[in-house]
Amino acid sequence: MKQYRVAVVGAAGMVGLEFLKILEQRNFPVADIHLYGSDGSAGKKLFFKHREVTVAETTHEAFVGMDMAFFSADVHASRHFAPSAVNAGAVVVDSSDAWRMEGSAPLIVPEVNIEDAAVHRGIVINPTCTVIELAMVLFPLHKINPVKKVIVATYQSVSGAGTAAVDELTAQVRQVLDGQQAVARALPHQIAFNVLPEVDVFLDTGSTKEELELLEETRKIMHAPELEVSATCVRVPVYVGHSAAVHIELTHPFAPDDARRVLSEAPGIRILDDTNIRLYPQPWTAAGRDECYVGRIRKDSAFKNGLALWVVTDNVRKGGALNAVQIFEEMIKRGWLAPGGRE
Amino acid sequence: MKQYRVAVVGAAGMVGLEFLKILEQRNFPVADIHLYGSDGSAGKKLFFKHREVTVAETTHEAFVGMDMAFFSADVHASRHFAPSAVNAGAVVVDSSDAWRMEGSAPLIVPEVNIEDAAVHRGIVINPTCTVIELAMVLFPLHKINPVKKVIVATYQSVSGAGTAAVDELTAQVRQVLDGQQAVARALPHQIAFNVLPEVDVFLDTGSTKEELELLEETRKIMHAPELEVSATCVRVPVYVGHSAAVHIELTHPFAPDDARRVLSEAPGIRILDDTNIRLYPQPWTAAGRDECYVGRIRKDSAFKNGLALWVVTDNVRKGGALNAVQIFEEMIKRGWLAPGGRE
Repeated sequence: MKQYRVAVVGAAGMVGLEFLKILEQRNFPVADIHLYGSDGSAGKKLFFKHREVTVAETTHEAFVGMDMAFFSADVHASRHFAPSAVNAGAVVVDSSDAWRMEGSAPLIVPEVNIEDAAVHRGIVINPTCTVIELAMVLFPLHKINPVKKVIVATYQSVSGAGTAAVDELTAQVRQVLDGQQAVARALPHQIAFNVLPEVDVFLDTGSTKEELELLEETRKIMHAPELEVSATCVRVPVYVGHSAAVHIELTHPFAPDDARRVLSEAPGIRILDDTNIRLYPQPWTAAGRDECYVGRIRKDSAFKNGLALWVVTDNVRKGGALNAVQIFEEMIKRGWLAPGGRE
Repeated sequence: MKQYRVAVVGAAGMVGLEFLKILEQRNFPVADIHLYGSDGSAGKKLFFKHREVTVAETTHEAFVGMDMAFFSADVHASRHFAPSAVNAGAVVVDSSDAWRMEGSAPLIVPEVNIEDAAVHRGIVINPTCTVIELAMVLFPLHKINPVKKVIVATYQSVSGAGTAAVDELTAQVRQVLDGQQAVARALPHQIAFNVLPEVDVFLDTGSTKEELELLEETRKIMHAPELEVSATCVRVPVYVGHSAAVHIELTHPFAPDDARRVLSEAPGIRILDDTNIRLYPQPWTAAGRDECYVGRIRKDSAFKNGLALWVVTDNVRKGGALNAVQIFEEMIKRGWLAPGGRE
């Protein structure tokens, strides 16, 4: 079986570390691995399969001989170095939002639109974490009963904002319990015992970029240009796991039991839904898991053909690193990683 | 100026204590005050205007000579003792959900429908806390541009579940930080660093009672029987303050600036909305305040004439004790407290 030479840019970050862990857990065919940083993490020592690997500074020459490169650093690192990785012959999965809104590179949730990765120019995009879970639950429903409108409110964990935000939550919780003033640096305001309706930057429309991405990326991934999506994205004091209250208008009537059956058969989805025993997805229990969990499946009382769902996914895994690994796996399986798989 | 004899049932609970504090802060005309418990709090000593008052056991005779009684104990205490208070000649504001869903007693948000309290049989109902904030923001919009549909997702603090849930959040946060297993008793599952899509009991429809109340109570308070409301109600690890992401479909187009102006002139509402300086309502800063805070006012991208809002209110004050005090104040002002004000 062919083994692959893998480069990871942003290896010491939260999603980068999870990417390494998942490569190990899934026994991904790694010939050798090269870890890069762009934010001062060079020199750090990490472990891959019990072997110490030192993080090197990212350079344009770093990708020579690589088969694949995973980028989970910032937008600047992707814009600056991903083209060099492509020129060196590697296929890049980019987890930054350097090219998410552009039409040129395929934006992939493997369970939904892996076929879109058949034609690429060396770069495939990992969608926004909240979009991944939304597309995963909407698509199986949409195929048999087209989704017209979606109103989504998110409950997003601090890990989505990086390691500094995770540490800040812990520090602030201690500060509040000790009767001190909480200090906010990584996030715009105090997050301990608070919620903040601000994820990513604000646009002129008054929406955030994350809220706009839920509309634009979901349409693109699902090939549903008519789909209407509106969102309120909110940061909550949770470490890992993005939750979402999803209210859907469908074209035809759809009984909650039918939706439950369709979703239970959909790839990557696990139903946790029994209100009699107070069973529903929770971020605390979804953390560290691969599945997209769905519960609270019921009729929506505002839409004519309405359905309401509660969705929870580990944003670092399926919302980030796992989705990227799955993109590589599926592309390998289909032979799309080879230069022949490109335009 | 006439002074009133006031009874408080559930005085040692969170909303009961806040009720006493607000009577003091607003210099409510109290002749004397009688505090009652029904859950073992009898014997507890509380303070009202620097005077110690002992909580007594609630009895049917407790209300003789009282002008008004505030009930913020449980459903059983209201069902058992409120009729005795009415028979003794007191007007009751009931904060339990003993009679919320019934048609007979007026359900009042003073800023919206105080006129409904003109005719009563001695009992006036304090609505569900999330309904109070929703009705306050919808009503001013509805008057000039009828609201057709509302999709709301809530972020509700643990104080809505009582003192035990507040203590449980603190205890669990310490347990998690100490690497121990969090113990859940007051709430169905761990709430520290977690969110739970369960507020109040589950109904056969798969919705919770709180979610149904957001539909039924809001319709009743706003006299809008056609209004469609669907909700997902979620408990979050916040001490005080209920937040809500509110997505609205109106009858006619409505610019966000016009909505902002209408809401800024509405009673009890305060706008905090400037994304340039990352200003929006937060539960941490709304706690202890009387106003219903509104921000993130923008176009909803899914509805044709859509509007999205972010609303935060102190659930113990405006969502509970303050709304009750305001009901009494407005009824006094209009002479509706006297027996003549009844059917």
